[in-house]
Amino acid sequence: MSTYQAKLSKDGHVYTKRDGLLGGLNTYAVIQPDRKVRSADDGHVWDVIVIGAGYAGLVAARDLVKVGKKALLIEARDRIGGRTWSAEVDGTTYEMGGTWVSHVHGRLFAEMQRYGLQDEVTPTRTDNGGCSYFTLDTGSGSRKFSLEEAAQMTARAWRIFINIDGNEGRDICPLPHSSLGNVRVSFDQVKAVDQLSCRDRIEQIRHLLTADELALIESLVPHCGGGSVENISFLEMIRAQALQGYSPETFEDIWTLYKIRGGQSTLARRIFDDAVKHGLQYTFKSPVKSIVEKGGMVSITTTSDELYHARRVINTIPIAVLPTISFDPPLSPLRQEALEINQVCYLTKIHAEVEGDLRGLRGCTWPGDFLYIYGDGFCAGGKSTRITSFAGDNRGVLDPLKEPERLEVALQRFHPMNIKKVIFHDWVSDPYAKAGAAWYPAGFLTKYLAELQKRHGNVLMASADWARGWRSFIEGAVEQGALAANVVMDELGVLGANTPPGSFEKI
Amino acid sequence: MSTYQAKLSKDGHVYTKRDGLLGGLNTYAVIQPDRKVRSADDGHVWDVIVIGAGYAGLVAARDLVKVGKKALLIEARDRIGGRTWSAEVDGTTYEMGGTWVSHVHGRLFAEMQRYGLQDEVTPTRTDNGGCSYFTLDTGSGSRKFSLEEAAQMTARAWRIFINIDGNEGRDICPLPHSSLGNVRVSFDQVKAVDQLSCRDRIEQIRHLLTADELALIESLVPHCGGGSVENISFLEMIRAQALQGYSPETFEDIWTLYKIRGGQSTLARRIFDDAVKHGLQYTFKSPVKSIVEKGGMVSITTTSDELYHARRVINTIPIAVLPTISFDPPLSPLRQEALEINQVCYLTKIHAEVEGDLRGLRGCTWPGDFLYIYGDGFCAGGKSTRITSFAGDNRGVLDPLKEPERLEVALQRFHPMNIKKVIFHDWVSDPYAKAGAAWYPAGFLTKYLAELQKRHGNVLMASADWARGWRSFIEGAVEQGALAANVVMDELGVLGANTPPGSFEKI
Repeated sequence: MSTYQAKLSKDGHVYTKRDGLLGGLNTYAVIQPDRKVRSADDGHVWDVIVIGAGYAGLVAARDLVKVGKKALLIEARDRIGGRTWSAEVDGTTYEMGGTWVSHVHGRLFAEMQRYGLQDEVTPTRTDNGGCSYFTLDTGSGSRKFSLEEAAQMTARAWRIFINIDGNEGRDICPLPHSSLGNVRVSFDQVKAVDQLSCRDRIEQIRHLLTADELALIESLVPHCGGGSVENISFLEMIRAQALQGYSPETFEDIWTLYKIRGGQSTLARRIFDDAVKHGLQYTFKSPVKSIVEKGGMVSITTTSDELYHARRVINTIPIAVLPTISFDPPLSPLRQEALEINQVCYLTKIHAEVEGDLRGLRGCTWPGDFLYIYGDGFCAGGKSTRITSFAGDNRGVLDPLKEPERLEVALQRFHPMNIKKVIFHDWVSDPYAKAGAAWYPAGFLTKYLAELQKRHGNVLMASADWARGWRSFIEGAVEQGALAANVVMDELGVLGANTPPGSFEKI
Repeated sequence: MSTYQAKLSKDGHVYTKRDGLLGGLNTYAVIQPDRKVRSADDGHVWDVIVIGAGYAGLVAARDLVKVGKKALLIEARDRIGGRTWSAEVDGTTYEMGGTWVSHVHGRLFAEMQRYGLQDEVTPTRTDNGGCSYFTLDTGSGSRKFSLEEAAQMTARAWRIFINIDGNEGRDICPLPHSSLGNVRVSFDQVKAVDQLSCRDRIEQIRHLLTADELALIESLVPHCGGGSVENISFLEMIRAQALQGYSPETFEDIWTLYKIRGGQSTLARRIFDDAVKHGLQYTFKSPVKSIVEKGGMVSITTTSDELYHARRVINTIPIAVLPTISFDPPLSPLRQEALEINQVCYLTKIHAEVEGDLRGLRGCTWPGDFLYIYGDGFCAGGKSTRITSFAGDNRGVLDPLKEPERLEVALQRFHPMNIKKVIFHDWVSDPYAKAGAAWYPAGFLTKYLAELQKRHGNVLMASADWARGWRSFIEGAVEQGALAANVVMDELGVLGANTPPGSFEKI
């Protein structure tokens, strides 16, 4: 289906009993040759350098070259997409990070419309597949529920969990894109709720839940936030509820149902190719070491000591990786404090190809190595099923690179299955991610979010990690890239073919 | 608050007992001087001419001048905004057409973020205001309900009404941006439902509703669609339900809660000014008479016989007005058939300034001259209330220009009130709208929608009237303008300051 040829990236792993753990997977996201750029070190000053080829960087770069800016994209990896990329393994597409799309993600959906992908979607779940029930294993044995029963139990528990304001989050988060104080809620009210961790909230409502409901909440929360109930801010869950319309009924459909059929990497690739067609230059495999601003000009040095200069920089490096970059002038003390605290999402997401039809598989184990599992359609050929599973923060417990065979054991706990291969990207050990999508601990957002969003001189900071709306989503990355590009356009001007017909009226 | 100076438009009316009916209202949407364009008739060929300065036209024009295209905007009125504009009357802002915003309108919200208006919102309803109850008058007397009781009755009735597939519209409209057949529903299934008018559907469920619930549904449907239950397609209501997440609970918040504080015209004005700053030329008060394409070049003639040529035209004229334009080559027979059938929204929307605090006012009369009413916050000064009311298709019954005093009588039926003035735009008699936002009759969408979206040679058709997603909304207009601009960019190219570094890899 794709018009691109998948090439081998250094990223990702596949594990099979026969061959053990092998690094590197094929993807449309690999760019070869990895460098199309005028020679460096010649003192050339770019209009803008974009650091990072995830969605934020791709959108920013595309928008800027289209208005005639001389732009250079610098990326540490051999591929585009950042924490969102699709691997192609034996004809099957696996989303290694960011996955789902919805028309409620307005900016992402607009990109899909722009590149003709709006109807090229496929659902994650096909309820009529084999093994169509929900397995709940809370340690005292494994039971099966119908998918509807499980959904109702989860929805009831979630409603109680989220209902801190008696209005299912509507009062605390009435405008999720400006959730920390706005026309309907004061900053102080939000700040009070932001002091709660998800564990704090669970303790408040524990007596209202059955043991099964409690297990579902205790696994759902870290499954969403990729951390632990102890360290994820409860406010983050309220925001999640608000963004998709305050309804547990639409939660799954908006968050985890539709994927781009050819993989996220085909969309990322279209944005990248559009940018290149309009003049974007780039250098991959070029991790940035330092960012120095002097007299309004920003100089970027890579780890191989290449030097590039620009009038503006759009820096999309994730919060967990930012501390590895040297800044001169240094980042503000408040931002440095935020980086030190850091986000909490250290999830493990793994896919497996399993024999037969397990498309209807869904389940939850708590406690367990994996929290959630679901069947994710047939693999190519239609004789095996792609299943996907998530853990929260398993650091120090289950290291997928050290004990890949334990991933198989963990999966078996949900259902007996004949696993042909296990496929994953270990985001935690990845030096250019160091973590998953950003979720924050209690007290963090009201203290640091505004600071993280601020520019640092002529370095604009654009990342889904501190997006205004769908923070930690692809949508948030697109938002940040587009907004940063607009700031650069406003400051540097754009190429206009018409003569501006005099100043426009304004008083 | 606004940085703009409101000026007198020919559009809109105000009625007072003392002065009777006066035409023309002040708005930030008026552009003076009304013409900044190189002399016409000199054979100059523009890259693109955009017809219509509503949101579709403004976004298209802005996007294109920003990538260096030579663009001319031609508008029939003295103002921008099309069917969306804000009047300023005695310090109070009145939305004369399109009104509400939400982060679920992703493209519109992105425009608000781009121009710094994301937090500049105000809610329509303030539940704690005086007169905080719901009046239901079904002809057999007027009764009062609490706002909560009314909401519950409406939600119950709506759920029954919409639930044609046993899944509240999810099965028939699983992907509302491609609602007429997609990965989850066949075109034939959608076509079958599209044969139903809202009246047909009401007859199917009438026995399940109380008399009050029936009255609420029979007034809610034409209030939404601006026509009558007899002529609005039921599929349109399912789409409405789907777009905001399949939940009656979020319907009001997404559809009718948040307004831009300074008025929609301040956002429209920012887009327009941004475009002008980057070279957009324009001519207002210039209705288009004919569109002729010959040898790939499109020539536009205005009613005052000015002639303009362009390589591409983006035509945003609404469906109800399109038949007044002469096309050569003529429009396709199928499109002409669609124009003849036309849309069905002939609503009357009126505002009033009333003495005292009626902010909590809400009500419904059925049958009645007005269907729905609500208090819409204080007027400037805080001593009077702005109320807003909607009728469906009242053509031949209540003509607001002929019997403006009857508007007052109709309003009094909801609640006794001392009306200081009535303010409205009569969209039906407006030659450049001829109707409200587009809603279609049964059978129309599955037969004509795809045809309406098609280009006509080098004339791209961009209008909210046939948007893919939020059809008939501002969001749909932004979608259409942005998509059309992208097509023009792809076909005509954009100015690139970098040299494209060779062809990009694709197989």
